[in-house]
Amino acid sequence: MQYSSGVIEALVKELSRLPGIGRKSAQRLAFHLMRVPAAEALLLSDAIRAARQNLGSCRVCGNLTEEDLCAICSDSRRDVRTICVVEEPMDMVAIERTGTFRGVYHVLRGVLSPLDGMGPEDLSTDPLLGRVRDSAGEVEVIIATNPTAQGEATAHYLAGLLRPLGARVTRIARGIPVGSDIELSDQVTVAKALEGRKEL
Amino acid sequence: MQYSSGVIEALVKELSRLPGIGRKSAQRLAFHLMRVPAAEALLLSDAIRAARQNLGSCRVCGNLTEEDLCAICSDSRRDVRTICVVEEPMDMVAIERTGTFRGVYHVLRGVLSPLDGMGPEDLSTDPLLGRVRDSAGEVEVIIATNPTAQGEATAHYLAGLLRPLGARVTRIARGIPVGSDIELSDQVTVAKALEGRKEL
Repeated sequence: MQYSSGVIEALVKELSRLPGIGRKSAQRLAFHLMRVPAAEALLLSDAIRAARQNLGSCRVCGNLTEEDLCAICSDSRRDVRTICVVEEPMDMVAIERTGTFRGVYHVLRGVLSPLDGMGPEDLSTDPLLGRVRDSAGEVEVIIATNPTAQGEATAHYLAGLLRPLGARVTRIARGIPVGSDIELSDQVTVAKALEGRKEL
Repeated sequence: MQYSSGVIEALVKELSRLPGIGRKSAQRLAFHLMRVPAAEALLLSDAIRAARQNLGSCRVCGNLTEEDLCAICSDSRRDVRTICVVEEPMDMVAIERTGTFRGVYHVLRGVLSPLDGMGPEDLSTDPLLGRVRDSAGEVEVIIATNPTAQGEATAHYLAGLLRPLGARVTRIARGIPVGSDIELSDQVTVAKALEGRKEL
C-alpha cells in the first residue's frame, strides 16, 4: 500500500492521467487538494463536471459551446467569408487573443496522423466543405493547423479538397518567433522564414 | 471574453489555483479534459469530491484516513515507541516508501512560520505531547520536518517541549543527497554533511 487510503490513491491516479502531470506532481496536487478548504477543492470538482455536462460542439464550426451556436458563429459582426481552420478549440483562443482576426473558425478536432490512427474520416472535413460550398466559393480558408509534419500534411490535404470548390486557400506564415533568435531557430524554421520573406 | 464559454473560463480559473499550474498550463489541462471521453474527466471530478467528503484526520496521529484510526495507527505490528514527526501527510508517503521505518507518525499539519501567521497554536503539538506522556517517556521522537529555516525552528521548538517529558529526541540527517555531487551542493548542506560524518 503506497498511500494510507484508497481514496488518495484514486485521486493521485486520476490526476496523473493529465498531460504533463507525472506521478510525483499528481501526488503533490492531491495533497494540496486535501489541505485547502474543502469548498475550494469542490469548486474544481464541480467545474470539471459542469464543463463536461454543459458543453457541446457548435453546430457550424465545432467550437466548444453551451448553446447550439458558439459565441463567434452567433456574432453577426464576424466575417463569414474568412474561415480559419484550426486543429483544436484551444488554437482559437490563441488566435482570438491577438484581437486581429474578424473572421470565423472551423475546428477539425485533430490532424491527419496515420500512426495515431487519425485518417481523413476522423476530421471534421465534410462540414467545412459544406460551408465553402454554401458560400459559392466567395471565401478565403486560412489553414492554421500547427506547423508540424501532421499539420502540414493536413493543410495540403485540405487545400486539395478546397481549391476545386473555388475557395482561396492560404496557410499561416512559418518563421522566426517574435522576440526569438535566428541563431536559436532550427534550420527548417530559418528556411521557411527566408522563403516567406516580404518587401520592406 | 477570453474564452467562448464561461464554463471553460471557470474551469481554467479553478485549475490555475493548483500549485505549479499557471494560466497556460491550466488552459491546456482544461481543453484536455474537454477532449478525453467524458467518463475520464468525470472520474477526476468524482475523485476530488470523494477525497474531500470521505477523508478525515486520524484520531491519534493526524494522518489522512477514511476511518477513525489510520492504516498505520491501527496496525499492531508498528512500534508505537518510535514516533516520527512530519509536517504533512505527503512526507509520510515518502518515508513509508523507503520500507525501512516500522514506527508510527505524528502529522504537525504545518511548521512554525511567523511570516505566514503559523504559530505554535496552529500545529498539532498538544496531541503529540499527550502521546509522549502516555508512553511514560519510553519513546524516541524522530523529528522529520523539512531541513528549511522553518523546519529547523520547529524541530528545536518541539525538542524543547519533548525532552522534559523524558523522550529521546532525534533529528533526521542532513547531508549530500545520494547520487548527487558535493560540488553542486550548497555550502550549508556540505557543512551539515561534514558535521554529521560517521566512522567507516
